[in-house]
Amino acid sequence: MSDRWIIMAEDLEHIAIGAGILGTGGGGNPYNGKLHVRRLVEEGANIEIQHPESLADDALVTSVGGMGAPTVSVERIARGDETVVAMRALEEHIGQRFTHVIPGEIGGSNAMRPMATAALTGLPVVDGDGMGRAFPELQMDTFSIAGVPISPAAIADIHHNTALWTRVNDPITLERQARAVTIQMGGSSGFAFPVLSGGQVRQHAISGTMTLAREIGKIITEARNRRDDPVAALCDATTTEVVFAGKIVDVERRLASGFARGQVGIEGVEEWRGSLARIDFQNENLILRVDGEVRVIVPDLISIIDSSSAEPVTTELLRYGLRVTVVAMPAPALLKTEAALEVVGPRAFGYDVNFNPMPGIYGLRGAA
Amino acid sequence: MSDRWIIMAEDLEHIAIGAGILGTGGGGNPYNGKLHVRRLVEEGANIEIQHPESLADDALVTSVGGMGAPTVSVERIARGDETVVAMRALEEHIGQRFTHVIPGEIGGSNAMRPMATAALTGLPVVDGDGMGRAFPELQMDTFSIAGVPISPAAIADIHHNTALWTRVNDPITLERQARAVTIQMGGSSGFAFPVLSGGQVRQHAISGTMTLAREIGKIITEARNRRDDPVAALCDATTTEVVFAGKIVDVERRLASGFARGQVGIEGVEEWRGSLARIDFQNENLILRVDGEVRVIVPDLISIIDSSSAEPVTTELLRYGLRVTVVAMPAPALLKTEAALEVVGPRAFGYDVNFNPMPGIYGLRGAA
Repeated sequence: MSDRWIIMAEDLEHIAIGAGILGTGGGGNPYNGKLHVRRLVEEGANIEIQHPESLADDALVTSVGGMGAPTVSVERIARGDETVVAMRALEEHIGQRFTHVIPGEIGGSNAMRPMATAALTGLPVVDGDGMGRAFPELQMDTFSIAGVPISPAAIADIHHNTALWTRVNDPITLERQARAVTIQMGGSSGFAFPVLSGGQVRQHAISGTMTLAREIGKIITEARNRRDDPVAALCDATTTEVVFAGKIVDVERRLASGFARGQVGIEGVEEWRGSLARIDFQNENLILRVDGEVRVIVPDLISIIDSSSAEPVTTELLRYGLRVTVVAMPAPALLKTEAALEVVGPRAFGYDVNFNPMPGIYGLRGAA
Repeated sequence: MSDRWIIMAEDLEHIAIGAGILGTGGGGNPYNGKLHVRRLVEEGANIEIQHPESLADDALVTSVGGMGAPTVSVERIARGDETVVAMRALEEHIGQRFTHVIPGEIGGSNAMRPMATAALTGLPVVDGDGMGRAFPELQMDTFSIAGVPISPAAIADIHHNTALWTRVNDPITLERQARAVTIQMGGSSGFAFPVLSGGQVRQHAISGTMTLAREIGKIITEARNRRDDPVAALCDATTTEVVFAGKIVDVERRLASGFARGQVGIEGVEEWRGSLARIDFQNENLILRVDGEVRVIVPDLISIIDSSSAEPVTTELLRYGLRVTVVAMPAPALLKTEAALEVVGPRAFGYDVNFNPMPGIYGLRGAA
């Protein structure tokens, strides 16, 4: 496989599905972002995806995306250029121009934002990201975990109001302050941070996740077209496993401090008949318990998909009566180090249990 | 009088009293700030106060001060260099060094912060400010009213975390976003904004308010030392009038969205015996009603002072049983234009009444 590819319209459909599944319930619904990027591609934008391994040492990269609760991003369509405004503010501050953008998180709408930024600026998108999934807070990425300075950092809103943090001592401080401003911005903003060298991206990014998202979507779409079982096709081609299937019997969801928090209950069918699954979420799905026993826990990926179409069911779309399958995938190795688990492990989310990883590796089968 | 003077230790005592009265109940208690500046003066700092009329056109000025609810600033002592950190971030952004600082508001602790900034940077302080008093929100200043761009703007906290707004379309947006970050910073921050030319300061600042604060404090202190009535001395020397006197009978106060809001009831004595005064405040005193009739309203200055010592009683020090005198002073002319009243007039604070100004001019008698 080449280290570079160009986004075609059908890739966007595939990435939207794959990013939805990797978004583990959160990350924002990719639908609006997909429409925006599709229009840019139809208008002639040439969006190049480049693997991190071919990045030069002196490449200058920033991660771009949207900040806000997913329930807001469904209701409020981003203008699309907030990330460009934030990126330009960062460039002005450091006195250098970026050569690439990289998704902050591959999960959900934040898979689309970097492509829109790329289309509007002509920069290539790095095939990788800082999460390999979605997480609710911005310090939960492999760059912060590796100790890359979080500042300077910029966010901008649809009116191009722009806030720049010139110095922030730790990522959690930025998370709190930037989220407070985002709430004042109406609940969503575009961000650009941190500033990364080509070498830092090669070392700390989770590689190949744009391609992974596209492949997941392609596998599912092709199985649907062949009238095969798309859930089975997903599990054949990737390290995804089915861990529960059933009918949603209750959903409790609230918007608190800028996050969608809650839990969903699923009554089992087939081999899970008579069992009850519960999934807690904070934007993203964090823990799956079956009959009270922990079955899968963060940072391993827990996604709820439609049982017949394998379409991802994000947190804001959960509703009574939906027939769903819960699938899980092992987290990327970079999220399972001791340092990473302090930030994205069970205890970081308030669960007093050790991380008991699923066996296997993240991604496509045989891709290691 | 010379257009320049140097701060001596006794000036600080006087300014603290005068700024307390001009603070109209808010602006933060100047006590901690006074101790900080006094220590800097004792250590040899030379703080020069310069009248705006002698500013060169190419002087580059920024307003500095503290943001936060006054109830927080009493409990949490500022490190003192937050404003310097904010100012340096602004300088780095514009690529120029400031030649002067100016108080954003003369009322309360924000009279002291620019002197501390001056001591730490060697810059002179402009003898003037943007309010001539204190106001609860940062867009309520003569620079914003005159249309001076509010961005770039910077705030910093005691840990030197620094947020810089490179572009903000209107001052109320900055007020909301900067206040949200300030709350995340623990309730107080140091600010630096806007960027002003010497010409803009000469045209839009309320002149001579550092000197006015010092004179008010000096008049009161000298009367106390002579065992004269300090309240009468204040009214003789300035356009201040006694508008009510009595005993505090109730205080209702709450911290809401970063502001101290509430009202105080005062039962009249002497010529006001049998009457009840009510003052509403949002950090600052906004309206005085006597027996239900509006007597004085914002932007005219309403201050509560101790009846025997004339010591200012700020909002957070109001308590049952205190014998107080309510004094009022006409607002500076720059706050009484049609454009200004849209921002600092009664309706800007939710009172559906016209501004009925006190007769007279702001400041020292015969100083016009």
